Amino acid sequence: MTDPERKRRKVMAVIGSGSSLDADREQLCVDLGRAAVEAGFRLATGGLGGVMAAASRGAHGAECYQEGDVVGILPGYDAGSANDDVDLAIPTGIGVARNVVLISTADVVVAVGGGSGTLSEMAVAWQLGKPIVGLAVAGGWAAKLAGEPIDDRRRDTVVSAETAEQAVAQAVTLTGD
Amino acid sequence: MTDPERKRRKVMAVIGSGSSLDADREQLCVDLGRAAVEAGFRLATGGLGGVMAAASRGAHGAECYQEGDVVGILPGYDAGSANDDVDLAIPTGIGVARNVVLISTADVVVAVGGGSGTLSEMAVAWQLGKPIVGLAVAGGWAAKLAGEPIDDRRRDTVVSAETAEQAVAQAVTLTGD
Amino acid sequence: MTDPERKRRKVMAVIGSGSSLDADREQLCVDLGRAAVEAGFRLATGGLGGVMAAASRGAHGAECYQEGDVVGILPGYDAGSANDDVDLAIPTGIGVARNVVLISTADVVVAVGGGSGTLSEMAVAWQLGKPIVGLAVAGGWAAKLAGEPIDDRRRDTVVSAETAEQAVAQAVTLTGD
Amino acid sequence: MTDPERKRRKVMAVIGSGSSLDADREQLCVDLGRAAVEAGFRLATGGLGGVMAAASRGAHGAECYQEGDVVGILPGYDAGSANDDVDLAIPTGIGVARNVVLISTADVVVAVGGGSGTLSEMAVAWQLGKPIVGLAVAGGWAAKLAGEPIDDRRRDTVVSAETAEQAVAQAVTLTGD
Repeated sequence: MTDPERKRRKVMAVIGSGSSLDADREQLCVDLGRAAVEAGFRLATGGLGGVMAAASRGAHGAECYQEGDVVGILPGYDAGSANDDVDLAIPTGIGVARNVVLISTADVVVAVGGGSGTLSEMAVAWQLGKPIVGLAVAGGWAAKLAGEPIDDRRRDTVVSAETAEQAVAQAVTLTGD
Repeated sequence: MTDPERKRRKVMAVIGSGSSLDADREQLCVDLGRAAVEAGFRLATGGLGGVMAAASRGAHGAECYQEGDVVGILPGYDAGSANDDVDLAIPTGIGVARNVVLISTADVVVAVGGGSGTLSEMAVAWQLGKPIVGLAVAGGWAAKLAGEPIDDRRRDTVVSAETAEQAVAQAVTLTGD
Repeated sequence: MTDPERKRRKVMAVIGSGSSLDADREQLCVDLGRAAVEAGFRLATGGLGGVMAAASRGAHGAECYQEGDVVGILPGYDAGSANDDVDLAIPTGIGVARNVVLISTADVVVAVGGGSGTLSEMAVAWQLGKPIVGLAVAGGWAAKLAGEPIDDRRRDTVVSAETAEQAVAQAVTLTGD
Repeated sequence: MTDPERKRRKVMAVIGSGSSLDADREQLCVDLGRAAVEAGFRLATGGLGGVMAAASRGAHGAECYQEGDVVGILPGYDAGSANDDVDLAIPTGIGVARNVVLISTADVVVAVGGGSGTLSEMAVAWQLGKPIVGLAVAGGWAAKLAGEPIDDRRRDTVVSAETAEQAVAQAVTLTGD
């Protein structure tokens, strides 16, 4: 029976480079994934390595983790390309355009570091009206845009966070009812 | 910690019309969704009404259901357009092309009734090498193609099933290792 | 200066297998492409080999051909994968979902032979309300569906044609104002 | 007959806001479209208003313009939403993700002004290895990124241009063989 009060769980997208991370950034992403699940979010990423894999691993290791909490939205057709901590792989087959699907799936987007791929996702998130948190500490476009608006269509900014816990606390506020 | 033995749960896509169903077809879809989850599948649909809503409701009502078992891959950008039993909405924003994402996400596809939308999904499933079960009992393209190959690139056929339980049993066989 | 009377040229999509063709089917596709351009259509295909390449070659060889008449809407990111007669390559990068873009671009769709890929395109064309001509002579799904409706949402059928000239004549009628 | 020497014409994408333009920016975009066609490019835009419409109008007004030179790659399914100077409308139906298709179609990208949509396109162009020219004079993200790299995966920068003619001259150089 469907519970009329039931609310769908919120989805946090964590975006960032697929390249391998140094130990500090890796820990930051693991902490971010874990804190996201502990705050009640489902985690969605692009499903591959680097930031995506570390955040997925953190989510998987959360105390309250349950199977299904970690979603990977992949560019190709092969679910097997997802990192090992993805519970649900969405192999879109639409290449780079899968970034739009990832952002569209998110209730809130947290950016870590980031080159041009992450920048395009932050810009799409802004276009689609999604709240964005930028982890200023890890450099890249997330840091450059933290505290800034991306254009003048919205009155808010990319919200700046210094730690994983702070980022998740802001995500909770930004998606609160 | 990632368990090296861990396997990702298999995904069953249930495809069929979004139009309202008569009581028999509705029950068939509810049974199908429930049996899918009871057999260990995660359920994915196009997230809207008709066959999609009934299968999602069945999945949600399964004894072993847990939150996260019901995925809806939507054509638009609004997660709110998903039926009430969808746990995870993927609002792709890519319109009719979302059908390809749904099929690509599936390990096995079960078709119920079906007009041109379902036919296009069965054809894409055939192209992408996904096993397909057609519920012969509910008419439409699923019944027309049940027991038939779609072209000669594969040696198998759309597998014919008479009941929801039979369809799920075949899906289990078709996705077995 | 924009001419207020100006009408955009109609686009005919020719769909069919990318595999190599026997001499009769090849000639049929060449004739189809040429007749399409001679009737004033721009030709769009999936940009690759087989039916797509033969129709593009025919279009390119039409007496009234001008550069820009032949469009190839590709699955990958590499414009270089287009056949040699494509003037404008659209490398979508969205894989199989590019079939939806091809159909959506067409004012009328002509199907030649065809396996599951072509079937999915015919089904999408039906969904999107595009008139469809099936070349009955070349077998495949085009022949199977020629003269038939795909479902009951439309009152027309896939229109059956026996020759390239007949297919184009019907396309002209179906897209007339 | 296919000429083995034949080369496909290069495509210039002009990207920028769909909002209405002041007279100076409008003239800049008209000049840009005209100069692009006069330099031998086909013009591709997102097919809608603002920068896209002005550039299309300029292209259409070029002395050497021929029908087929102006392409509009649209977010929706309605070719009728294209501006009046688009010769070939590609109604993708994939929403915001059509920006990726536009960039992928381009041999070179010229950005004018620009908010978050344009920024996402510049970032995707960088990812896909496309040369980018930013018209510094019209503000927005095109100006902010002119002369800068977007990340360190490439050794070049967004090339800065002050005038339409300069932008096209740079585009010619950047796409030369």
